Amino acid sequence: MAQEVQNGGADKAVKFTAVKPQLMVEAPKAADAVQFYKTAFGAVEACRTVNNKRKAEEELPHISAQLELAGSTILVSDICVDSATVKSHGSGCVICLETEDVEAAVAKAVGAGAVQEGEITEGEGACCGGRVGKVKDPYGFVWLICSPAKKCVDVEA
Amino acid sequence: MAQEVQNGGADKAVKFTAVKPQLMVEAPKAADAVQFYKTAFGAVEACRTVNNKRKAEEELPHISAQLELAGSTILVSDICVDSATVKSHGSGCVICLETEDVEAAVAKAVGAGAVQEGEITEGEGACCGGRVGKVKDPYGFVWLICSPAKKCVDVEA
Repeated sequence: MAQEVQNGGADKAVKFTAVKPQLMVEAPKAADAVQFYKTAFGAVEACRTVNNKRKAEEELPHISAQLELAGSTILVSDICVDSATVKSHGSGCVICLETEDVEAAVAKAVGAGAVQEGEITEGEGACCGGRVGKVKDPYGFVWLICSPAKKCVDVEA
Repeated sequence: MAQEVQNGGADKAVKFTAVKPQLMVEAPKAADAVQFYKTAFGAVEACRTVNNKRKAEEELPHISAQLELAGSTILVSDICVDSATVKSHGSGCVICLETEDVEAAVAKAVGAGAVQEGEITEGEGACCGGRVGKVKDPYGFVWLICSPAKKCVDVEA
């Protein structure tokens, strides 16, 4: 079947350009969490994207923010507790790996024993730019494999 | 800084020097997980520490490894599923923040609303050097606040 295609991807050298832990916060508390991380750890908010696709009954928009701390980036995102995303994530923390070649990276991870979850989709925010694939590794951790995030304007500048 | 001595450290400026996601793997599978991350993502193992304090009935030593990927560090550690550590972590992924002043960083986080878990202790491995404190934030995430890890020899060099 797709064996040859899969092996083609699995053997390809994949270069990752960034690693970003993403904290999934029960919506709509991500904005509060961002404030907490600023106060508690001195994190600096580099950008925030608003997801306007919320349900009519939800009062607050869902956000996804990019925080900078000690030269690293941490993403903080609202997530609906009843969504399939949360259920498949399993844990409140996933790790985003950025690469120019999402397809090859997903194929390589699957070739090594990870399980792909869902299809590769177009990302919605500045935190994950362009295409996003998701794999769960044999140890239960979820990895988001994304094309590089768009450059964002520093909201505190 | 003017605020430096208020609230027993809670207002003190705290500088973090590194952010490292730590994946807690059910013991003794961390070594397998490290091999998987090398194969799947091309991670490079920078160092590995062995915890010899395992129980007599356990065949394999517990390890903690430091992986380098895209300029970031990811820690992968064996953890006993019946240990208090796992129960208090709640999730399989915690984030280590390195700082020279663990006490002040813990105090500041607690001042902002985090809950300290346990006492500040001496770390056991190269991944977390020296003193280690643990706080849970109001959103359920656990942060390990550690003094900087010792420099480690590249095991693949």
